[in-house]
Amino acid sequence: MTNRKGKEFRLKSRPIGVPAPENFLLAEVDVPEPGPGQVLVRNAYMSVDPYMRGRMIDRRSYAPPFQVGETMTGGAVGQVVAAGAGAPFGVGDHVLSMAGWREWFVSSGAEMLQKFDPIPGVGLQTYLGAFGMPGLTAYVGLTRIAELKAGERVFVSAASGAVGAVVCQIAKAKGCYVVGSAGWDEKCDYLTAELHCDRAINYKTVGDLDAAVAAAFPDGIDVYFDNVGGGHLEAAIGNMRTFGRIAACGMIEQYNATGTTAGPRNMILVVGRSLTIRGFIVSNHYDLLGDFLRDMAA
Amino acid sequence: MTNRKGKEFRLKSRPIGVPAPENFLLAEVDVPEPGPGQVLVRNAYMSVDPYMRGRMIDRRSYAPPFQVGETMTGGAVGQVVAAGAGAPFGVGDHVLSMAGWREWFVSSGAEMLQKFDPIPGVGLQTYLGAFGMPGLTAYVGLTRIAELKAGERVFVSAASGAVGAVVCQIAKAKGCYVVGSAGWDEKCDYLTAELHCDRAINYKTVGDLDAAVAAAFPDGIDVYFDNVGGGHLEAAIGNMRTFGRIAACGMIEQYNATGTTAGPRNMILVVGRSLTIRGFIVSNHYDLLGDFLRDMAA
Repeated sequence: MTNRKGKEFRLKSRPIGVPAPENFLLAEVDVPEPGPGQVLVRNAYMSVDPYMRGRMIDRRSYAPPFQVGETMTGGAVGQVVAAGAGAPFGVGDHVLSMAGWREWFVSSGAEMLQKFDPIPGVGLQTYLGAFGMPGLTAYVGLTRIAELKAGERVFVSAASGAVGAVVCQIAKAKGCYVVGSAGWDEKCDYLTAELHCDRAINYKTVGDLDAAVAAAFPDGIDVYFDNVGGGHLEAAIGNMRTFGRIAACGMIEQYNATGTTAGPRNMILVVGRSLTIRGFIVSNHYDLLGDFLRDMAA
Repeated sequence: MTNRKGKEFRLKSRPIGVPAPENFLLAEVDVPEPGPGQVLVRNAYMSVDPYMRGRMIDRRSYAPPFQVGETMTGGAVGQVVAAGAGAPFGVGDHVLSMAGWREWFVSSGAEMLQKFDPIPGVGLQTYLGAFGMPGLTAYVGLTRIAELKAGERVFVSAASGAVGAVVCQIAKAKGCYVVGSAGWDEKCDYLTAELHCDRAINYKTVGDLDAAVAAAFPDGIDVYFDNVGGGHLEAAIGNMRTFGRIAACGMIEQYNATGTTAGPRNMILVVGRSLTIRGFIVSNHYDLLGDFLRDMAA
């Protein structure tokens, strides 16, 4: 045992609807020494991501549910501060892991540790965003799942989010026409001014979302990157071009739902327009990490 | 002009809901002689398929809408009875075409004529079914769209229909576990007794379709061949295995709908289970025709 004390978040109770502070407990724990083959990591940043909402529910999914009373996990970036004999990483190494929601951790083999060499001038927190899992998610969704080609017409929901913002940037870098949606005017300004989206749609104020999407895509959509589900998915399906592809990355609109939610009423267009809707989980596509970091650096 | 008279069906008015006889007109016309490069074909059989319902509506789709007052088209099998100079086919040749709903036609180049050599003992009408477009549809959907592998768990809706029945047989031939749904007990008996499905579900009498599908697939579904949409699609999504594939071939449940229809309420599972829903139109996959006829003959 070191003399260090560390803080960690635990799930106190399962939220119903929108999570509240009382669903979580911030505990103080002793920090152990790393044993043989282990490293002690101090996290610098942790990530809070939409998929975590699903893990707060006790159901079978791609990521196992958080257990009440146990420490939560999630993406984090940190640095090795102590290494046991034969450990795969050395003191000072930077590592990404799934051992977030805590200040310190000793590796057990389940944290999916990945060493990386920070690029000068790129902040560590960027490796939880554009250069990390959200960025890789955007890259996987656009390249492998949606098979995006240069010059296509791309619609992105939750476009100012961690994943969506990288989707917009990759698509613009490929010479695509890109329209993003967001729920605040400030976010829409960011989409056009900073991310160089061709248009932005404020879905909260636009009224008829389907009409707004149709107006933004007079020739239809080739690729829709779906972070939202619900009304966005229906509006996208209604405006897809023949052979259009939908990368289903998340359905935020349903994460906090307490009842059943309506599905897209126009699924019949999936047949008539030969559409593909493909869901994916980034952890099944880590083999693209090398390609991703190389392309992002460029 | 020949001295022949022929009959043909025309669309008299656009049906609202279920089509009725008064929506159609049976007209008698003179049969012309074929000009240079043309053939005169006498149809032996024509096919009436679910997708034709969509063509009776005036909307943009993969197949252009039937026009009121004009002769309808559709799959047909016939024989060349006269050939102009330089025609690609000779008298006596058997041909598949999209020039159905009529007794005779002279080729104009738009009929997608395909010559074939009938296999002895196989009736001509079979080339509109198991050996024709419905069979090719089943083959394309299972092999190219759903990427079916030997031994997988397959669910088929409208399984006793022209397409569904071939889906069941191909899947069984690949050593798959196959469950079909139909709306009559007699059809369900046919599925298990004649097509050798492992189980059949009568969706009209089963009560809770989702529970019935779950009971038939204790380990989940790898491939769902969707001819129906609606409740079947939702029940399938709810029981898909990770990386499951849905070939969206038709959504009969919606063809006669006069209002909007509910969509699957569990689309979020498409993300969590990395599902693929892919729609297709067989006419975009005629390149598989050779493989299909070779495999079917075997």
